[in-house]
Amino acid sequence: MADPSPFAPASLPELPPVAGVRLAVAEAGIRYRGRPDVLLMLFDPGTAVAGVFTRSRCPSAPVDWCKSALRGGKARALLVNSGNANAFTGRKGREAVRISAGYVAKAAKCAANTVFVASTGVIGEPLDPTKFAGVVEDAVWRSRPTPWIEAARAIMTTDTYPKVATRSVRLGGGSATINGIAKGAGMIAPDMATMLAFVATDAPVAQPVLQKLLARGVTDTFNAITVDSDTSTSDTLLLFATGRAQGVRPIRTAVDPRLKAFRIALHDLLLDLAHQVVKDGEGARKFVEVRVKGAATKQAARRIAFSIANSPLVKTAIAGEDANWGRVVMAVGKAGEKADRDRLSIWFGDIRVAHKGERDPAYSEERASTYMRNREIAITVDLGIGKGADRVWTCDLTKDYVAINGDYRS
Amino acid sequence: MADPSPFAPASLPELPPVAGVRLAVAEAGIRYRGRPDVLLMLFDPGTAVAGVFTRSRCPSAPVDWCKSALRGGKARALLVNSGNANAFTGRKGREAVRISAGYVAKAAKCAANTVFVASTGVIGEPLDPTKFAGVVEDAVWRSRPTPWIEAARAIMTTDTYPKVATRSVRLGGGSATINGIAKGAGMIAPDMATMLAFVATDAPVAQPVLQKLLARGVTDTFNAITVDSDTSTSDTLLLFATGRAQGVRPIRTAVDPRLKAFRIALHDLLLDLAHQVVKDGEGARKFVEVRVKGAATKQAARRIAFSIANSPLVKTAIAGEDANWGRVVMAVGKAGEKADRDRLSIWFGDIRVAHKGERDPAYSEERASTYMRNREIAITVDLGIGKGADRVWTCDLTKDYVAINGDYRS
Repeated sequence: MADPSPFAPASLPELPPVAGVRLAVAEAGIRYRGRPDVLLMLFDPGTAVAGVFTRSRCPSAPVDWCKSALRGGKARALLVNSGNANAFTGRKGREAVRISAGYVAKAAKCAANTVFVASTGVIGEPLDPTKFAGVVEDAVWRSRPTPWIEAARAIMTTDTYPKVATRSVRLGGGSATINGIAKGAGMIAPDMATMLAFVATDAPVAQPVLQKLLARGVTDTFNAITVDSDTSTSDTLLLFATGRAQGVRPIRTAVDPRLKAFRIALHDLLLDLAHQVVKDGEGARKFVEVRVKGAATKQAARRIAFSIANSPLVKTAIAGEDANWGRVVMAVGKAGEKADRDRLSIWFGDIRVAHKGERDPAYSEERASTYMRNREIAITVDLGIGKGADRVWTCDLTKDYVAINGDYRS
Repeated sequence: MADPSPFAPASLPELPPVAGVRLAVAEAGIRYRGRPDVLLMLFDPGTAVAGVFTRSRCPSAPVDWCKSALRGGKARALLVNSGNANAFTGRKGREAVRISAGYVAKAAKCAANTVFVASTGVIGEPLDPTKFAGVVEDAVWRSRPTPWIEAARAIMTTDTYPKVATRSVRLGGGSATINGIAKGAGMIAPDMATMLAFVATDAPVAQPVLQKLLARGVTDTFNAITVDSDTSTSDTLLLFATGRAQGVRPIRTAVDPRLKAFRIALHDLLLDLAHQVVKDGEGARKFVEVRVKGAATKQAARRIAFSIANSPLVKTAIAGEDANWGRVVMAVGKAGEKADRDRLSIWFGDIRVAHKGERDPAYSEERASTYMRNREIAITVDLGIGKGADRVWTCDLTKDYVAINGDYRS
């Protein structure tokens, strides 16, 4: 077990119930012993669901299942297990999902295509679905509206702290709650950094609107973070809307003016969870915001920002508290986007270290080095050629990352 | 200083002279103390030159200079310094190159646009060209046909051993020699990442033919290696042909039948140097060949191969001697190229670990783990969907990489 992230919160927020959602966790002994490894969420009839998934060309069996189930747009249950990703498990993997969803459908008395499934952990190991059999039935029986923290814990692999967030938002004549849990990079058993996030709200949002909100919501949150540039086969983010909020009339179109506050709250919650994932990146000791402005387009700004955020040389420099802006130049140069070396300026925090293609005349190594000792680092790049701007978040690359990922099976 | 690479050769080959080439090294005290940091190569009149450079959008001043000088197609001298890359140094950097080349032109009595310049080291620090003044004159005076190993040492930065290679090739009625030196270490990725290589031959090859040979030669050698996916601002590979080989008539066209043996020898030498660069990758303890076959196209195969070779999770697994093929699946999936999970097969060495989208029924963790203890590791992926094949080379990602790059300036 690695040391906890320095960003592990001293205390966790209390999450209120979300009307129409019940939860239970259980121990199925899939890989871990003595800790919950199964989460079951149950949703009232009429719950709409939206989802976004890994873009991997080799997705896991549960991802395939969810994509298919999403076509119906309705959800009654979510089953998540940690310890085994059920990825790259062939026909047996598809069977395992079908059987698991079948147990849930039977126990929760709903259609199988309203059961969503996610798995995280080792890949390539067959997942034995019979382990869920009694567990699921019992979990339905025990499910309650409150155990959100326990839910966040049950889906952890090598996360060093549970990730939860909650928001409350005025919505028309009433108010709605949004709760979310997430898990990020793993280490001990898992073979990859899988991101799972599940968000539930009691807002009465119609499915097509919900899907739009989610697609838009992830762009500058979960799609703007990177730990190590590696993309899991299992990444899944699902958003459930039960519609049980009191006093709120249904929201049926994306232009409904009541959505504004909801959209902001959702974005805020997603960003919160995404940052928690980065801050618990494997071996992470620093949290880094990379801002790019003055690029040809927003898209170019994002590519350049990710080129910086994914550069091993930039990330190791940050780990070493080295204000090595030369590596930032390198990362800008390799991004493949339009850049003019002689217009480029770079800041660490508020300190301009390079200006118009040269070291800033006022550059002070001491000042820059002092800044680099902060836990949270901001790198800003101004390309000076256009109006495109964007920002992404990452963590540093430490010896612990290598230890965590290199030593696991030895 | 890091430990030497386990691939550091026990002894270095002796390089024969190349007719028409003289060399000298010198100490200019640019950054390092007590070691040569300048290399001067001199070429007889009539020497043709070809070059390939970094594709960085923020290239160094020397790269700009060489690209411009290359238009003339002729070379009389090459000046290389280690310790300072003269990159991101603005107008001062351009001036520094112009002044340095001027010193060489004056001392070697040649035109400035036949002087090639390369610099490697820290980015963003102004390079003081006056440090070359007396040094260059003296070096011209001392230059001899033999000190190739010394030349390879003078251009090292974090390299742990000098990289040299030589080939002799029958060419028409005579024979030609090809000598090459290279430096690498960090920031190695395709597109000629952080890497300097200089190759000289006495073969009488016309400039346009030479450029074609070089462009073709790098595709499956220097452009097929990666240490950390980072692309330097300074990568330069120059090929000089003095034409002084005895008894060989000039080669004026790319279809000259005499070129076949030369092309093979050049490719072989470039591959040799490229492999030496990877084997001395920062912190490298393993040399990895990634082979991809059965892809839609050769280009798709290369992208997938690089996705595997650049994946931090794959590279840390290799460092940990972990037969973690799940991470290979992940890297295939994220490459963005066509793939069918259920047709995918993966081998470590000769051991098939996964077959048609599942763990191989005959998989033995023990056998696979034993294989992973080798110094040289081959990963083969068969996508099973087409005939595209390619291979690339990389090294593992170790704690030493993080230490070297986290502590570089501190």
